[in-house]
Order: sequence, then structure tokens, then C-alpha cells
Amino acid sequence: MYRTNTCGELTLKNLGQSVTLCGWLQRSRDLGGMTFIDLRDRYGVTQLVFNMDSRPDLCEQARKLGREYVLQVKGVVAERSSKNPKMPTGDIEILVDELSVLNAAKVPPFTIEDHSDGGDDLRMKYRYLDLRRNPVRRNLELRHRLAMLVRNYLSDLNFLEIETPCLIKSTPEGARDFVVPSRMNPGQFYALPQSPQQYKQLLMVGGMDRYFQLARCFRDEDLRADRQPEFTQIDCEMAFVEQEDVLQTFEGLMKHLLKEVKGVTYDAFPRITWNDAMKYYGSDKPDIRFGMRFVELDDVAKGKGFAVFDDAQLVVGICAEGCADYTRKQLDELTDFVKRPQIGAKGLVYIKCNADGTFKSSVDKFFTAEDLRAFAEKCQAKAGDLMLVLCGEAMKTRKQLSELRLEMGSRLGLRPSNVFAPLWVIDFPLLEWDEETQRYYAMHHPFTAPHPEDLPLLDQPERWGDIRANAYDIVLNGNEIGGGSIRIHNREVQNKMFHTLGFTDEQAQAQFGFLMGAFEYGAPPHAGLAFGFDRLCSILGEADSIRDFIAFPKNNAGRDMMAEAPSEISKEQLDELAIRLVPQEK
Amino acid sequence: MYRTNTCGELTLKNLGQSVTLCGWLQRSRDLGGMTFIDLRDRYGVTQLVFNMDSRPDLCEQARKLGREYVLQVKGVVAERSSKNPKMPTGDIEILVDELSVLNAAKVPPFTIEDHSDGGDDLRMKYRYLDLRRNPVRRNLELRHRLAMLVRNYLSDLNFLEIETPCLIKSTPEGARDFVVPSRMNPGQFYALPQSPQQYKQLLMVGGMDRYFQLARCFRDEDLRADRQPEFTQIDCEMAFVEQEDVLQTFEGLMKHLLKEVKGVTYDAFPRITWNDAMKYYGSDKPDIRFGMRFVELDDVAKGKGFAVFDDAQLVVGICAEGCADYTRKQLDELTDFVKRPQIGAKGLVYIKCNADGTFKSSVDKFFTAEDLRAFAEKCQAKAGDLMLVLCGEAMKTRKQLSELRLEMGSRLGLRPSNVFAPLWVIDFPLLEWDEETQRYYAMHHPFTAPHPEDLPLLDQPERWGDIRANAYDIVLNGNEIGGGSIRIHNREVQNKMFHTLGFTDEQAQAQFGFLMGAFEYGAPPHAGLAFGFDRLCSILGEADSIRDFIAFPKNNAGRDMMAEAPSEISKEQLDELAIRLVPQEK
Repeated sequence: MYRTNTCGELTLKNLGQSVTLCGWLQRSRDLGGMTFIDLRDRYGVTQLVFNMDSRPDLCEQARKLGREYVLQVKGVVAERSSKNPKMPTGDIEILVDELSVLNAAKVPPFTIEDHSDGGDDLRMKYRYLDLRRNPVRRNLELRHRLAMLVRNYLSDLNFLEIETPCLIKSTPEGARDFVVPSRMNPGQFYALPQSPQQYKQLLMVGGMDRYFQLARCFRDEDLRADRQPEFTQIDCEMAFVEQEDVLQTFEGLMKHLLKEVKGVTYDAFPRITWNDAMKYYGSDKPDIRFGMRFVELDDVAKGKGFAVFDDAQLVVGICAEGCADYTRKQLDELTDFVKRPQIGAKGLVYIKCNADGTFKSSVDKFFTAEDLRAFAEKCQAKAGDLMLVLCGEAMKTRKQLSELRLEMGSRLGLRPSNVFAPLWVIDFPLLEWDEETQRYYAMHHPFTAPHPEDLPLLDQPERWGDIRANAYDIVLNGNEIGGGSIRIHNREVQNKMFHTLGFTDEQAQAQFGFLMGAFEYGAPPHAGLAFGFDRLCSILGEADSIRDFIAFPKNNAGRDMMAEAPSEISKEQLDELAIRLVPQEK
Repeated sequence: MYRTNTCGELTLKNLGQSVTLCGWLQRSRDLGGMTFIDLRDRYGVTQLVFNMDSRPDLCEQARKLGREYVLQVKGVVAERSSKNPKMPTGDIEILVDELSVLNAAKVPPFTIEDHSDGGDDLRMKYRYLDLRRNPVRRNLELRHRLAMLVRNYLSDLNFLEIETPCLIKSTPEGARDFVVPSRMNPGQFYALPQSPQQYKQLLMVGGMDRYFQLARCFRDEDLRADRQPEFTQIDCEMAFVEQEDVLQTFEGLMKHLLKEVKGVTYDAFPRITWNDAMKYYGSDKPDIRFGMRFVELDDVAKGKGFAVFDDAQLVVGICAEGCADYTRKQLDELTDFVKRPQIGAKGLVYIKCNADGTFKSSVDKFFTAEDLRAFAEKCQAKAGDLMLVLCGEAMKTRKQLSELRLEMGSRLGLRPSNVFAPLWVIDFPLLEWDEETQRYYAMHHPFTAPHPEDLPLLDQPERWGDIRANAYDIVLNGNEIGGGSIRIHNREVQNKMFHTLGFTDEQAQAQFGFLMGAFEYGAPPHAGLAFGFDRLCSILGEADSIRDFIAFPKNNAGRDMMAEAPSEISKEQLDELAIRLVPQEK
């Protein structure tokens, strides 16, 4: 036994006890007659005291120790003269009798403090030192806790965690697969799973009834900010259920997590159709921590001679409460914001509802005070409020206004990270038209069932865009944290779906053959859902980046900066795998 | 809601209730006036009754249904006239009012029964049907239960489950890595982890103190029977611990599993040194469900003029109780057994202790009754027992006798699968000499610490073979189910170890650079252990093969027979990955 106690547990109750502690030297202070060392381990920090009068040898030794040295000390628990009420161990200190240096340490390249002086790249390279910092450690502790809560909750509901393979068949659909050359089958490749979708459906065919898995998934995408090539999802599937059963089950899970981890309880989560989400928030993942819902303004905006509005498919606005005093500079900032290429609006119209009942707008030339009052009534804007209006092609304009709404929410402090607003979005469109390839794509995946009421529309190609899916997303604070659907379990409907997606029978067979085959042997009605676990952790950890909730993340180029992966492999390895590299242009 | 109840829960308590059940048609029996259907789901089987008198329509419909059809029925719970006490639902049946066919099913290619008529290959190809069979389902339920028990036990001991990456750096050491070409870094590859070894040690450097993970691992080995290219281990690491702490912690875990799953309790697990394990069992993973320990017979066997014994480095035997009546045929079988090429003994000497006190042996020409009595005394053989003796080069002979001992144990029924005999094997050799390359290899891995008493031997190359490791295996019923070691945390010892293993500084740096670098920033003393989870499941599931405890296993050629993986990928995929195939000779 290297230690009798951890650095986080000794208090006045332990006064006079002889203890042995181990940990890292957090900091030391030399006060002449005394030397103090803060000793840190995962569980906390305890103050050590070395006394020059009673143990000059130890005190001299202690003074020479550097930051992050690994120490073992024996001593007696004593009451501090100046207590630190911020620390659980702040009432005591250890009068050290014995000191062993278990390991020396070079000076770390950044400070091991809650607010480190290290930049992102440096902390990624020395991730093992970054892990010693309290915020990073707490993130991983939260992740562990959430995983345990999820597993126990689902297990108690008779879900079985079943591990599905990581070496699977490559199916060229959607995002790119990572592939793995097979040495024993030269010229052939495994793929790493983008999700266990087909396997979990096979488990339902196999009668497993309720399945879950915290599953590692892989996507060889061009990485955007905060995407990782490998990620973890809480993957779930249930047999003999309808949409309501799925929503109730996983709403229960989310409520359980929010209660256990955040101490907040909820009534039924609100639900919104995809159509309404687009209409009122311009987004299929609305942040409902705040209101500021869209108001469609066509009938008050059009026909007044302002061509920009008159020619637009849609005029739509939001009301920012109490922002009528925004300065020219602030309004210019908002205009610049919506005109950024990523957002792409042509301009922004504002209408201030002044305190004295008058209006001031950027379109005063075209609209009378009476006209503007009509805007205000529509928007339920009061004196002191600011209306912000965009116009243009309907869907594009909604997406632009959604960005502006979120920006205003942030500016007004309406999106605090310690408030949690979950929401179901339902009735997604089944199909998405792609202009480039002039065909429909499955919005979720080809196994998503159409809404029962819309089944007949599968036979009417001109109505395909109107078909609703039996699909649902769960949204938290503006992030899609999970999504799923009722699956097609009927071969005839599945064939129609493939036809709609432009698959030939051969293509469907090549890509999904074994799943389609399985469905012929008695597939039960089934449905599922998958949560993005990394994102769920980051939101409940009240942080923006998922990277801080992954022990060893990769950077935006998919590289592990610490281990230097990926890397070149040897000629012998390539030969064994029967592959060659294509020479690269420099 | 497709159902109100499962097929496993209705009993006499539910008499008269209206219920809705869903499931698969297990079998149907048509008795003229009545048709009975056994409806099966994951939770059990319930008998359905269709009555020709009251509902001829339903009865006709029911008679047309095939095996494995997916049904939904509504009806009333009634008491059976002839009860089936073997089934939890055997006292009741459902008088069916409504019947819906949720899905039809083709005739399955094998019977969905506890003992199926399907061969291995067929069941692998239709794994989703095999999963419906009770024994396979129970295996996966056991696996889930064990995983939950492991996680909750370790979590309660402050272990954190931390996910380590699957896309890591290739380190050409030990078994072959699977590699993954990186599209974004052409010419470079990730590797899939053979174990999270280096990452878990980095977590200790990072102060995580106690780590575990049910980790997917990958090994591109030529597959032997019952090896899988991907497998799961319970991977653990602890800081500030000595060997005794590790053994106590994981002995606690094993006791917990054995108690919860098997209802058996244990005192302290026995421990044996590697040297004694080889001496008494000829194996580093002895099956101690039975005795039959080796007896070294040199002093009674040599010097009697039998050259085979006289020239042997070691004469060693076992005593098979009550086997003196073995026939010529049985003895010939045993001789053939040890002479099989996989075992490689030149011959087998037997000595029968007859009931009348005489002896009968295959070496009567060379040994008097008095000589043979000396054998018997050494072996503590009684009248009625059979001694089996092998001789030759010591280590080879021990391994041969180990095989014979296990064979005799099986023949005598001394290895029942429902008896569990755990054992620690400690004090492994640190290094293993390889004749071919004329150098030492690490028996575990290069980070395993030498036994503290043997540290000085690192400076004496002629004694390297004698150095014991601070390493330990946990053995259950003759299977190594886990193993680990105290790690080297001291840079100087690690350098000596690399030197001993013939690594240049550059080689050590290239392979283990980032771990070695991490050790310079304050590595705590640490140690760990990993259990083979698939094997643990199979032993506690009282089965021989791990394949039955994996939802979607691969065959011995590493192929997924159901999904047909690995497979060819497209020219476009190869181009994107900047690799080409080497043409194969046909």
C-alpha cells in the first residue's frame, strides 16, 4: 500500500492520525521557518508542512522539489492555523515525518491549473498533462457517470447491451467509410462502422427485443470544427413499439440524466413538427431556452412600394425585447453578421419601437408610422423593443433569421449553459430533393418508415416531397443530441422506398442484401434512436467543445498530436497487406 | 403499444385478463376442433388457443400460419386443462379473439430450437435466426449481465471508465496491427489497438488514478480455432499500488461475479508461482478443478538400465486414480494421444497398481516389482490406480504431460463445466529467450517491472533468464482469463529493460517515444490487469467456444459469413485513399 488515504478526504475528524499520502506537487511556498507543499491527486489537494526547527533535513529536501514531482509522505493530521474554507481539506494540514520522491518531473510545458497558460496545440501534444487539470478531469468523471447512468437505466428497462462488430462490410452510402485491408483476404477490405444501424435491426429480427450499446462509430469526413473521426453514440433499438413508446422511453432516460446530473425535473418535453420548427425557428434543432419566435410579415410588409419586400417569397422577423436603444454601431454589427458569406443575407431591416411610441426604421422611406405599427402588432413588440426583419426565398431566409435569432439570444444572455431546454422535433420529411443529382435522398436513412397517413403518397411521385417520415429528433439547447425513426419492416414498402430513392434492385441487393434477406424471415415492427454521446456530455458539462470530453481527441485534421498518428507504415506491412501507395505530388 | 404483456409473464394471477401479445410462431398443433400455437418472444413462450366452434374464421386463419411468422394476438387469459409445469406460463393459455399477422416468414433454413438441426456455417450465415434460439439468447443475456456487474463493481471502487481511441499509431511489436489508410493524410495509416496498453498508462501519468474500460481490441493474427480478429477485454489500471493491491482488487471482482452469476463463494484464491505451476502442472494456466499433480520420478526411474529414462533430462508422471483396469485399447489411445504431432511425445510408460498388490507396466523388462513399488510410493498410488509416465527434455515433457493430465481429467469427468476453480499464477519470468533470433523478448511487454529482489540481475546478462517479473495471471478452469503486471515507472529501469531487449535508443524512441516522454513528467507507480471478456463469458456460460458469446462473430478465416465481409471496395475508394492493390496470383 503506497497510501492510507487520498488527498481529498482528510478533515478535522482525522486530527492526530498518522497517514500516508501520494500525489503530485501542485505548488510549494517557502516561508523561511516553514515550507508548505500542496499535494494533489485525483481526489483533491492536501497541504503538507515541513518545519525547519524540528526537521531541517526534510525541510531542505522539500525545498528542492519541483512542480509535478510525484511524492509519498507520511505524517500526522493537524489543525491549520489559517483555514481555507474553499477546500474540503482546508481545515487540516499534514506535519510531515517522512518524504519519498517516487518520481521526478521535468518542468511541464504549461501550468497545471484550472486556467492554464497552455494553448490548444500544446495541451493536445501533452494531453497526459492536460488530464491532470481539474476541468478536464471533471469532464471525464462526468462522462463516466453519464455512461453508468445510461447503462443502468436502460438495463433496468430490460434493454441488453450487445456489442456489434467494428470490422464490417463497406457500404458506399452517405459519409465515407474508413476501410481496413484484410491480410488474410488480399484485395478485400473491412469497413469501420459509421453506426451499428444494420446490426441493431438484425438484432430485432433476432428477437432481442430491446438493444442498446455505447458504440464507437467512425466517419471519414472532412473534419469541421468539433467533429472527430471516431465518436461514441448511445445506440438503441426496440421491437413491437410505436413512435409514442420510443419517445416515452428515451424522454424518460433524458429526464433521469437531467435529474441525476443537474438536479432539474421536467414535465413532458415539448414537441414540435419539423414544419413548425422551420416556420417558427428556421431550424430543425431550435434552441428554446428563449422565445423570439419568427413572425411572418408578408401581409403587412408587402404592397407598400418597397420592392425588396414585394419581390420576396417571404418577409419574416423577430422581436428583440428591450433593444430599441441599440446604437448605429450595434445595428451595423448585426447587418454585417447576416451578410457574412456563411449566412448570406443581402441586408437587414430594423424597426425600433421607441419609448415615446414612435418608430424608427431603416425603411422609413417606404413605411408610415401606421404601417410600422402594424409590424409591431404582428410581432407583439412593445415600446423599447427592436424588430429585425429579413426577406427573400423562404427556406433560405428562415435559416438566415435562425442564425440572427441565436446571435441575439447570445447577445442578450438568453442562452445560459446551465439551463437545459429539451424538445422533440417530429414529422420530418421522409425525402430530401437534391438539385445537383436531380433525385431524392432519404433524410434519415433508407429504412425509415413513412408516416402511416402518407403511405399512399409513395405511389405519387409528384407528392414525394410531401411525405412525412415516422422520424424524430431530440434537441437540447439548439443541438440535435439524438434522432431515430420507426423502421420499415415490410418488404413491399421497403421495395417502394428503394424505388423512390432511385436504387435498382441490384444496387439495393448489393448494399443491403443481407438485411433485406433477414427481413424475409419474420422481422418484427421495430424502431430506434441514437444519441451523440460526446455532444450530450459536453452540453451537460456546460461546455462548447466535445473535444474536452474525450480523453485523447484528434485535432481538426484528424491527427493525434500526442502519438503522432496517422503515420507511415513499413514496406513489409504494405507487402503483407497486398497494397501499394500511390505516389503523391509534393 | 403493440402489446400489453410479454410472452414470459402471464400466470394464473392474470386469469380473465384481456391481453395483447406479440411474438414469433414457435410451433402449432391442429387438433381438429382446436388449434394451438406456441407464441415466443425474448421473455418466454405462451400458448394460444383458437377454437373451431366459437371462432372458425380465426381458427382457419391460424392453421395457415407458418413457423416464425410474426403475430399480434388479443385474447383472454384462461386456465389450461393440461398444465405444463416446465414452463413459467404453463398454467395458462390465451383464448384468442383477434389475430394480426405483423409479418410473414419464409421457412427458416434450420430449426429454431434449443438443439437446432443447423450446422455451424449455416447458423453463422443466418446469425439473426440463430439469435432467436434460447441458448444463444441466454449467452448474450449473460454477457450483458456480466458487463453490468463488472462496470458497477469497479465504478463503486472509484474506477472511471474512460474510452481510449481506436484509431491509433501503428507500433510494429508483437502481433500484427490492422491498419486504416488515412484519406486526409495520404500515405499514412492509423492502426487499430491490440490493447489500450499505452493509453491506460498515460491515463495514470495523467492522474486518473483508477481506470477501466470494456475495450474493443484487434489482432490481425492467423486465426486459430476460437480466436476472433476483434475481441473485448476488461482493461484496468491503478496508480500508487503494489502487486498485493492489484490481486486483492481483481480477486474481489472475480468473487463478485462468481457469487452473483453462479451463487458460489470463495475464500482467498490459491496462488502458485510460475515455477511451481510448470513443475506440478506443466502449464502456466493449470486447471485445478482436479489434482493429479506431477510427480518427478528421476530418483526411482533412473539407473535401472532403461536407457530411455536414463538419458532423459526429466522423468515425470501422474497418478490416475482407479484406472488400473484400463484396457489395452484404452492405453493405446492414450499412447496415440501423446504421440500426436501437436503433443509430440515419443511414447508413454504406464504402471498399473493391481488390486492384488502386484504391478503391471509397459517397462516390466527393466523394473522389478520393488522398483515399481517405489514409483507407486512416490506417486502415492494405491491399489487400483494407474501411473502414466513421460520422459525427455524437461520443459517439453512437462507440456506433454500437461496435455495428458487434462485428457485424463476429461476422461474421468473431473472437469465439470459447472465447477469453477480460480487461481493466481505469479512470479512469471520477465524474459523469454528466442532461439531463432538469439535474443530475449519480454514475456508480457516491455513495461513490465522486474521483481524488486531481482533488479540487480538486470546488470548481469548471464542471469537475465532468471529474472522474475512483477507479473500475474488469473486462471480459471485451465484458461488464462486475465493477466497484468506492475509497470516500470522509472526511466532508468526502463532504459535498462530496452537495452536487455536489444532495442537501440532510436528504436525505443520510435516505438514508445510519447510514452517514454510522458514518463519524464512525473509518472506515478502504477500497475494493471486485463481480462479477456469473451473467454470469461464463455467459461461462466459453461461453454467451450467464445463464438457463441459474440452476437456477430467471424469464422476462422476472419470472415463475417452473414454480411460477406471483408469485400472488395471500389476503384474510387482506393483512389481517394491513395492506395492500389497488388495483383494476386490466382
